[in-house]
Amino acid sequence: MPSSPVVWLRDGAEFPQIGMGTWKHNGEKASEAVYNGLKNGYRLIDGACDYGNEKECGEGLRRAIVHDIVTRDEVWVVSKLWNTFHRKEHVKEAVLRSLHDWGVSYFDLYYVHFPISLQYVSPDERYPPGWFVDGKSKVEHDPVPFRETWEALEALVDLGLIKHLGVSNMCSALLMDLMSYARIKPSVLQIEIHPYNVQERAVQYARSQGLEVTGYSSFGPLGFRELNMPKALHAQPLFTHPMITTLAEAHDATPAQIVLRWATQRGICVIPKSDTLQQMGENLASAKIKLTEEEMNAISGLNLGLRFNDPADDFEGCHIFS
Amino acid sequence: MPSSPVVWLRDGAEFPQIGMGTWKHNGEKASEAVYNGLKNGYRLIDGACDYGNEKECGEGLRRAIVHDIVTRDEVWVVSKLWNTFHRKEHVKEAVLRSLHDWGVSYFDLYYVHFPISLQYVSPDERYPPGWFVDGKSKVEHDPVPFRETWEALEALVDLGLIKHLGVSNMCSALLMDLMSYARIKPSVLQIEIHPYNVQERAVQYARSQGLEVTGYSSFGPLGFRELNMPKALHAQPLFTHPMITTLAEAHDATPAQIVLRWATQRGICVIPKSDTLQQMGENLASAKIKLTEEEMNAISGLNLGLRFNDPADDFEGCHIFS
Repeated sequence: MPSSPVVWLRDGAEFPQIGMGTWKHNGEKASEAVYNGLKNGYRLIDGACDYGNEKECGEGLRRAIVHDIVTRDEVWVVSKLWNTFHRKEHVKEAVLRSLHDWGVSYFDLYYVHFPISLQYVSPDERYPPGWFVDGKSKVEHDPVPFRETWEALEALVDLGLIKHLGVSNMCSALLMDLMSYARIKPSVLQIEIHPYNVQERAVQYARSQGLEVTGYSSFGPLGFRELNMPKALHAQPLFTHPMITTLAEAHDATPAQIVLRWATQRGICVIPKSDTLQQMGENLASAKIKLTEEEMNAISGLNLGLRFNDPADDFEGCHIFS
Repeated sequence: MPSSPVVWLRDGAEFPQIGMGTWKHNGEKASEAVYNGLKNGYRLIDGACDYGNEKECGEGLRRAIVHDIVTRDEVWVVSKLWNTFHRKEHVKEAVLRSLHDWGVSYFDLYYVHFPISLQYVSPDERYPPGWFVDGKSKVEHDPVPFRETWEALEALVDLGLIKHLGVSNMCSALLMDLMSYARIKPSVLQIEIHPYNVQERAVQYARSQGLEVTGYSSFGPLGFRELNMPKALHAQPLFTHPMITTLAEAHDATPAQIVLRWATQRGICVIPKSDTLQQMGENLASAKIKLTEEEMNAISGLNLGLRFNDPADDFEGCHIFS
């Protein structure tokens, strides 16, 4: 059974370089995907409050533990703090709710999903809260210093509820500031990375600060096409891009494997979503491909600085990449 | 005599939309430029510790006051905190030194030059300190939370040494964080803006937060060509760009005036450097040009997201735009 290569976090912890993404896995499918992922060698499940499926993911995990496929401590269970819980008085509540949904007593890694603070929504009212105020297409900001959120998370590390902290969708300048005051430094930066958005500088900076980098949306426009996002519909799909298909043939691999390997060979971690058992296996097996330096550079040459997940496209005042 | 249009800062203060830049004006030239600028209608002089010419700028200002061209309170005297003075114990020293060099008792506007904190250099040792550790081509970081720097500046506003605070080279995400804790909000954001770097989103965000925006390097590559910066040498100069020259002819204006007017018609403030009296007059007079919406859009269509002033190009760990 294929397994993931590992990278080492700043505390020496072994971190699976290929994990399983759960965004857009809904209901029953999420539970199945997590169970099958663990059964097929995955050891990191990348979840989030906002994905609205942590209960189902947790069911998949519990089933895998009951079936002796994994023990709890063999799996990286990952979640993310949603934007409406940035105030210090809401951080613990959000973490406890996610822990409860997953049915675990600690997260191996817990990210701040976005450096954007929105007005609190009580879980009794709506969960997950999402971006918009209920019934309106409007976001309500509630400015909270990032430091307040971070210190509240550090306190949960002290309590043992979280093992490692991470930041997601954070630009280098804000990370630089965070590094100046963080008592517990972030271990992982999760940002959008694919051949159309190579992110060389952000990766370089994060590494210089001792963070590992996880790239999301490794397949570029693919994950956003199902959301009918215009810029994703207009971008050439990577899996039919002649350069990628040519490399796939040359390496007797799938286009998905080429794109994943381009990332992992840069030392970047990935969290592709798999819809089938075959994809699950192929994604893990991608780590065996060896791309030449020229091939790596050719793929990086596709860079357009094209970001599909930019909250400023859809939500007022959510400018985190300008 | 032409004068500058004004915009209004968050406290209602009238802020000249066309000021005079002093970067790369050295020695005698700086003093002459400031004197002549004031004599020819300029009412804002944009200086900085790092430009190494505040004493000379101050001489020009003093001469203009002595000659009854202006009174102190008619002029916006602007300076910027250098990267080596971000610690709270150094902020006041830096401001007092710049005030002393200018020969004024307060700054109308004082920016943080970059959201980058470098190790302190004593003025006795080297002034201005610049980027590099003396004798080496190496920068030494000294992480300081931006909030610490900001609070030290707020205290100087309380003391009356500074009338308005500004931020320069700050991305929206860091500005969002600053807005969450600033007791005294920044009044102006100064960033690189020209037709090759339109910065629509950064401008929009800053305005949504009540800041006015000053664009520097309005002429794009021009100011960087004299520094032999490769990306500036490779970029088509704006003043010979066919679209700009065509518009200049149509409006009986110079290319420089078209480019400046494109900025000011967007409501952006500019601080061009002038080498001659003629340029000084032309720059101020540019405000009378009326570009049509199509013409404005055509110029904005030159956007390449091309940034000439990115410290990460030259200085290790200075990633503020990725």
